[in-house]
Amino acid sequence: MLKNWVKEAVPEKEELESRLEAARSRLYEQQMQIKEHKIPVLVLFEGWGSSGKGGAIGKVIRNIDPRFFKVATMSAPTAEELRRPFLYRYFKEIPEQGKFTFLDSGWMDEACKECLHEGMEGEKYDRRMDSIRRFERQLTDNGYLLLKFFMHIDKDEQGERMAHLLADKDTAWRVSEGDQWQHEHYKKCLKVFDRYLIDTNMPNAPWYIIDASNRKWAELQILETMVANIEVAMQNQSRSVPILQNAYPLVKMPLLSEVELTGKELSEEEYRSELKVLQKKLGELHNKIYRKRIPVIITYEGWDAAGKGGNIKRITGALDPRGYEVHPIASPEPHEKARHYLWRFWTRLPKDGHIAIFDRTWYGRVMVERLEGFCSENDWKRAYNEMNEFEKELVNWGAVVIKFWVHIDKDTQLERFNERQNNPEKQWKITDEDWRNREKWDAYEGAVNEMLKKTSTTFAPWHILESVDKKYARIKALKIVIEEIEKALEQKD
Amino acid sequence: MLKNWVKEAVPEKEELESRLEAARSRLYEQQMQIKEHKIPVLVLFEGWGSSGKGGAIGKVIRNIDPRFFKVATMSAPTAEELRRPFLYRYFKEIPEQGKFTFLDSGWMDEACKECLHEGMEGEKYDRRMDSIRRFERQLTDNGYLLLKFFMHIDKDEQGERMAHLLADKDTAWRVSEGDQWQHEHYKKCLKVFDRYLIDTNMPNAPWYIIDASNRKWAELQILETMVANIEVAMQNQSRSVPILQNAYPLVKMPLLSEVELTGKELSEEEYRSELKVLQKKLGELHNKIYRKRIPVIITYEGWDAAGKGGNIKRITGALDPRGYEVHPIASPEPHEKARHYLWRFWTRLPKDGHIAIFDRTWYGRVMVERLEGFCSENDWKRAYNEMNEFEKELVNWGAVVIKFWVHIDKDTQLERFNERQNNPEKQWKITDEDWRNREKWDAYEGAVNEMLKKTSTTFAPWHILESVDKKYARIKALKIVIEEIEKALEQKD
Repeated sequence: MLKNWVKEAVPEKEELESRLEAARSRLYEQQMQIKEHKIPVLVLFEGWGSSGKGGAIGKVIRNIDPRFFKVATMSAPTAEELRRPFLYRYFKEIPEQGKFTFLDSGWMDEACKECLHEGMEGEKYDRRMDSIRRFERQLTDNGYLLLKFFMHIDKDEQGERMAHLLADKDTAWRVSEGDQWQHEHYKKCLKVFDRYLIDTNMPNAPWYIIDASNRKWAELQILETMVANIEVAMQNQSRSVPILQNAYPLVKMPLLSEVELTGKELSEEEYRSELKVLQKKLGELHNKIYRKRIPVIITYEGWDAAGKGGNIKRITGALDPRGYEVHPIASPEPHEKARHYLWRFWTRLPKDGHIAIFDRTWYGRVMVERLEGFCSENDWKRAYNEMNEFEKELVNWGAVVIKFWVHIDKDTQLERFNERQNNPEKQWKITDEDWRNREKWDAYEGAVNEMLKKTSTTFAPWHILESVDKKYARIKALKIVIEEIEKALEQKD
Repeated sequence: MLKNWVKEAVPEKEELESRLEAARSRLYEQQMQIKEHKIPVLVLFEGWGSSGKGGAIGKVIRNIDPRFFKVATMSAPTAEELRRPFLYRYFKEIPEQGKFTFLDSGWMDEACKECLHEGMEGEKYDRRMDSIRRFERQLTDNGYLLLKFFMHIDKDEQGERMAHLLADKDTAWRVSEGDQWQHEHYKKCLKVFDRYLIDTNMPNAPWYIIDASNRKWAELQILETMVANIEVAMQNQSRSVPILQNAYPLVKMPLLSEVELTGKELSEEEYRSELKVLQKKLGELHNKIYRKRIPVIITYEGWDAAGKGGNIKRITGALDPRGYEVHPIASPEPHEKARHYLWRFWTRLPKDGHIAIFDRTWYGRVMVERLEGFCSENDWKRAYNEMNEFEKELVNWGAVVIKFWVHIDKDTQLERFNERQNNPEKQWKITDEDWRNREKWDAYEGAVNEMLKKTSTTFAPWHILESVDKKYARIKALKIVIEEIEKALEQKD
């Protein structure tokens, strides 16, 4: 794209000024329309060192009220960030509905640096491109407007600008060593940038190459592109998003009605002795995954009163509290609801070597959000694939993903509800909502069956824990967790 | 404290077990009472390396539902954290009402390491102790239960435990180089720890030294201490907190009614030319503070429609967007309301070398929260001092703190309200709430006068911006910002 790119002629001064004026005031108006339409806008500035990314952002945001935007400068990933999937720090920054986030360089910069300095090539490069395209598609599918600008200047222009900055000690810090390397290897970088731009130039989030050799002209190109795209985004808002076919191998799951619950029990004695052995084993494995930096994500879904809490406790009872975290997932807070539904899970991912346990999960999208109408039909239908993609991303990062459905039958639930209701110490565990959900058992059962069928991938299959006898379910969960961790450790050896 | 500390005799096995059983089930009951009473509980575990802090936390949390607690392991501060005040990373972790946070080492560990390895002594040490005592007092004054445990073992016990851990490669990572150094310098460390414990052993948050040589016994001491303290905290909840007298030198402020508003104006021409010069100057200073790593915090309070937004824009217009952030402060979200009212400001502090602009601030506590009854009388009366302390902490860290009150008279406000109401493009800027607040002008004026009087410290004085002519106010703000930054730069030279 860069190689064949042809510069447009810079407009005459008068035209430039009048078009600038028009674009600025249009953007000023649009900020309120964006707010009304609840569109989140992510604007990514990539480009050459000293091409004026920061300055351009500075000019654009003058037209927007500070309540409606945020600027994030993505310098090199910190040690903490490097212990998470590479998309983590970008997903964290995505804007709320009706707001803008401006990123001063981002996932392009990171990927190209890995190509240039760490030799990212072949399969690893392809996988990265896949991740990036999926990430961008997941944003735009969920109503985000993603604008990607590449600020382009030629080698001579870059050289002049750097020399100018370096001449003053107060501006010299703006020219990093990386920038200087880039200037010395301009041609090589051009090649890598060009390939990246081609590989990620998708219809849902195309690239806009900005002639950045003249600052005012650059500002105009950016503003006009923003204004036009915001217009389109508002017009398209009601459009439904195509639902992608599942592309991952699936494991066949039984219907819930086919799951045999009787006979799945353990005596108190068997339970005690197995528990002791398995917890000891898991404790040892926890040390091993810490040392080998393997992240583990354990998710729990299941019927109310199925015994999720007690089951989780038997896992955590074996773990060093410095190496795990339990995330109880309730209904989202306003700032969570205002973002992509996976945001609050992305931001809760464990560091490598750590274990994150989710008590309820992203699957809420295709259960409660589906059945209570908290999202559109198109939203939840699309979500099966989005969640498979999310988990694939985690597995590619190196994570062990273990998904439990804690299962009981309707009679057992009633028994436990009544027991909770009648026991003052346990009353807090039962709410009116639990009773209301119980009335919708059949609808939930249908939704769960569909979920199990569509999201039990080979890399992150569902495990059903028969929990009429909670002891049985606990031992089964421990065994699965141990087995999956051992598998991962073997592969890492 | 450690030096004179006398070990209690370990109870007989049978007694130990029965007391453990009782304490565990009492804590289990208390978690719900904590929730009902909305008490936030922060439990800090400090102590010797290999004294079993992690293990002890692991045992305590078995009695608590994962929805109600969080464990945070405070390893050495990251590069990002080191660019903020030392309390930043601890303040971030404070629990919500009704929940527990367990900290695996914290501000004691950090302070003692600085004493041992970086020679923190004399004035610097005293200042740190002041900060810590203030921090702890601010928590407990605001309803936090703060429990501080020091896990104590003698040198031989420590040596044995380390040898045991080091013998297995899966546990060897638990013994850090720092731990080994500590073991070799046990006596020296004991001295530093002892002094720290004495210096921070305050009635609102006393130290509990735990004999950690026997794990079960340690668990019992911790549980019984927790249980007893939670009991006391619940009984004391309705008590009012003493209001501390201001200890900082104040700058005398005029009453709002004494502020001359007429004649404070600029011609369009004067404004344009001054603006240009001042913004250029500020842009240059921004580079300088970045290089010298000086953090700058600019806060805006003022009447509705006084022109805060436009004023802020003239500041930011001069700045590189990579080096500043504007924080518009609206009413708190649930997770913010559930914590200390300064939490959402602590977590938004800039990195050193960066500028943070707050559009409305912590002073909401003594204005809207006071007048609308969102906090108790005792709360807002206490807040003047708390906010002075907060700003003192920022200034001690090295920050420039600039506080603006943007001032207009009642007639001017009415004029601007009407103009907004009648201009479709500006209607979003005016809400019913603005009109309601206007009716309370006199009450607000009284509250503002009290605020200006009590919080205009010499290190963070208020500046009144006469804004009937917005141009005048903008130029005045720019001049003050420039002057304050220049002063800070001189001091840093």
